[in-house]
Amino acid sequence: MTPPSRDEDRPLAALLAPDLLALLEESPASVAVETEEMHPRDLADVIEALPEERVVDLLAALPDERAADVLGYLEEELRSHILEALPARRAAEIVVEMTPDDRADVLDELTEEAAEEILAEIPTAERLITERLLAFEPDTAGGLMTTDFVSVPADIVVDEALRQVRVLAREGRQEAMYAVYVTDAAGRLRGVMSLRELLAAPDGTRVDDVAWQEVVSVPATADRSEVARLTAEYDLVAIPVVDDERRIVGLVTVDDVIDAIEEEHSEDVQKMGGMEALDEPYMQVGLLDMIRKRVVWLCVLFAGSLLTATVIGRFQDALDRALVLSLFIPLIISSGGNSGSQATSLIIRAMALGEVELRDWWHVARRELASGLALGLVLGVLGFARVLLWHEFGLSAPEAGNQFPVRLAFTIAGALVGVVTFGSLAGSMLPFLLRRLGLDPASASAPFVATLVDVTGLIIYFGFAVLLLQGFLL
Amino acid sequence: MTPPSRDEDRPLAALLAPDLLALLEESPASVAVETEEMHPRDLADVIEALPEERVVDLLAALPDERAADVLGYLEEELRSHILEALPARRAAEIVVEMTPDDRADVLDELTEEAAEEILAEIPTAERLITERLLAFEPDTAGGLMTTDFVSVPADIVVDEALRQVRVLAREGRQEAMYAVYVTDAAGRLRGVMSLRELLAAPDGTRVDDVAWQEVVSVPATADRSEVARLTAEYDLVAIPVVDDERRIVGLVTVDDVIDAIEEEHSEDVQKMGGMEALDEPYMQVGLLDMIRKRVVWLCVLFAGSLLTATVIGRFQDALDRALVLSLFIPLIISSGGNSGSQATSLIIRAMALGEVELRDWWHVARRELASGLALGLVLGVLGFARVLLWHEFGLSAPEAGNQFPVRLAFTIAGALVGVVTFGSLAGSMLPFLLRRLGLDPASASAPFVATLVDVTGLIIYFGFAVLLLQGFLL
Repeated sequence: MTPPSRDEDRPLAALLAPDLLALLEESPASVAVETEEMHPRDLADVIEALPEERVVDLLAALPDERAADVLGYLEEELRSHILEALPARRAAEIVVEMTPDDRADVLDELTEEAAEEILAEIPTAERLITERLLAFEPDTAGGLMTTDFVSVPADIVVDEALRQVRVLAREGRQEAMYAVYVTDAAGRLRGVMSLRELLAAPDGTRVDDVAWQEVVSVPATADRSEVARLTAEYDLVAIPVVDDERRIVGLVTVDDVIDAIEEEHSEDVQKMGGMEALDEPYMQVGLLDMIRKRVVWLCVLFAGSLLTATVIGRFQDALDRALVLSLFIPLIISSGGNSGSQATSLIIRAMALGEVELRDWWHVARRELASGLALGLVLGVLGFARVLLWHEFGLSAPEAGNQFPVRLAFTIAGALVGVVTFGSLAGSMLPFLLRRLGLDPASASAPFVATLVDVTGLIIYFGFAVLLLQGFLL
Repeated sequence: MTPPSRDEDRPLAALLAPDLLALLEESPASVAVETEEMHPRDLADVIEALPEERVVDLLAALPDERAADVLGYLEEELRSHILEALPARRAAEIVVEMTPDDRADVLDELTEEAAEEILAEIPTAERLITERLLAFEPDTAGGLMTTDFVSVPADIVVDEALRQVRVLAREGRQEAMYAVYVTDAAGRLRGVMSLRELLAAPDGTRVDDVAWQEVVSVPATADRSEVARLTAEYDLVAIPVVDDERRIVGLVTVDDVIDAIEEEHSEDVQKMGGMEALDEPYMQVGLLDMIRKRVVWLCVLFAGSLLTATVIGRFQDALDRALVLSLFIPLIISSGGNSGSQATSLIIRAMALGEVELRDWWHVARRELASGLALGLVLGVLGFARVLLWHEFGLSAPEAGNQFPVRLAFTIAGALVGVVTFGSLAGSMLPFLLRRLGLDPASASAPFVATLVDVTGLIIYFGFAVLLLQGFLL
């Protein structure tokens, strides 16, 4: 019988939590054995379904190393509560078993006081490493890296290197052993080989001759998006972090790169939706916190939108004489906003992937001008047809001033072409402008572009109206 | 001296292409040696800057295996041109050196005819594997997987397993050797261990006792987003693909998972911008193709927006008597669209990450109702102030019908609260609705939500106007 594959709709946690709770009640000592073969991620899933006070008991019933593994997979909030609820010494015993990067991340989530207390209970060597990692910005290579990596001197032979690697593997401190780095006498990075390449090499060869001399590496200050880009481009499973002297100081592993990619993408999507990025999952972020992240941009956009009232105010005379013009205000400005939103999304994503650079702006501008004109013409024809058809079938009866349907139709069509073209152009250029100013191109949200286009769109619309209807409707 | 770290603004390709071209001119035989230590990705970068007809000569000057590595990193379009320009036999010699998954991907990009010709020149064993991989949908685990993986029988001991792994490594066919799978006599997946765990295990131990029994795996039909989710959640570097009998048929490696994640992100962002997803990078997709991907949604949204003209048409009488109402139309509907865009982006992203499931809709609805009300109140107060301040300072002179500023201010404020609340609610529920209907939640673009809110927003606005101004301005 094949075990069922995991299904996101099957609440695995809910299924097993009662059993686990009963076991914990009955014989805490057997919990470790009974759950031994579960992936720590699955055990964490089950644990998250338990009442919080029992989680502490459960972790206490697991060996330190296992507890550390599970803790790494728990939700941030729960994890912080548990570590703060545990005696500092016990918390220290657990976190010291985590990989250095996870340990630093976990302590970084705690209140400074709680983190200090736990740090004070950690053996000096691990404490110094942890404090050094904590000093890096979380969004940089330094903030993502672990300090455990495997390196061998350049002048040893393959069988000796393999022996050293096996010793390191048995010490069990290296989370990742996918790449073996080769260093010179001064500890500088000279080369890299995969464990496969080391295993495949003939025994007596010098490792220096086996390794690749070109190693992709980053400084500790590199932004996580740069780390992600290089990892993806070079198909790496780990990327070494080097200092100014090109000595390895750490290693960013691919699992942390994936997490960084997902976080970066969440931030981009939220910014593109017209708000500040949340730092936590939607369901966990506090309501007040979420409102705060949304209200600022809403107010900025509102302030921008106030200009639309001013523009319409300027054209009150025209509207007064030809009220029919008011009918098409939302239609026209929305069309500009929509084409702008398309252009902006395309460019933001292309920039994030490095497909489009700052120097490409002129090329993009010409492309968007052409697309905008084509799209505008399509909508212009539709708008033209709308005005004439409604007139033809007498649907426009209640609309004031439909004595000049063809002129009105040309006004609408012209405005649509103008607004859609302007929208594509403005939407595509805004990310370039933001990047040029050193800001995040993803801040060029659909609402931002729409607001920009609303104001200009009204001017274009009323401009066409004055041009084509002056002396007729106006 | 430390080598300069790579900088995305330094045109590495432009720097080296002339040298490479000169070398190719002078002594084609030395190209392979001179570029030997370059990462294939960097060599591909340089090659992309060469005139296309020279690229074929250059690849001809490289050993098959090296040519295959470089080919894997070239842009899709260039790669297809080259393979179609090469004699089928020569092309076959190169692609046969690629990993099976890359080989299938590369052939999939060619015209069917060209692919058939090359396939006919490939040795039978590799051809059958390639044809099998080509049969899978590209967006599934089967389409992403390679067929080279490392497995050992459950009943051998560690030193024997290590010997077998070294033999496989020397054959050099496994691109990834990060995980060693343990299978039973029928070839069914029984366990997994990392190469580190195998290296660390005491020599005489049975591999069955070293391996983890719980192995995360996927069927070949699993969607790439499911593959990505599991890889990220379980911090994997490779995920085995199994058949109905739980026999391993392939392996998806983390580099392909990252590519799939990035592609999925691009599609989401483009859909969220209100268009169909492009299949190629922005700069490479044809202009006509891009316009086609944008025009459909623009027309759909345009059709939706036509309703706004109908709604305003219904309220022409009110507008005629109180033209001042026209001033605030864009302001009010944009505010609804903006809050809707925020809510929709939040929920789409939370769904993509699995933070929010279908069953959470009620929880989300309540949360968004609360947020929407709070945000609407803030904007309502701003709108209220705007009307009264403009009136106070006589700025509203040209606006018709400002005899009842307080009533007008309450109308604007009320409409803003209503529209923003409705926007948040509609924007957050739309992704749920789409997913419930089996559609992609990311299709709930900012423009889609804005259009939805425009129509309702106008009704809410004029509703408040009739309620508060009837008998006064109206």
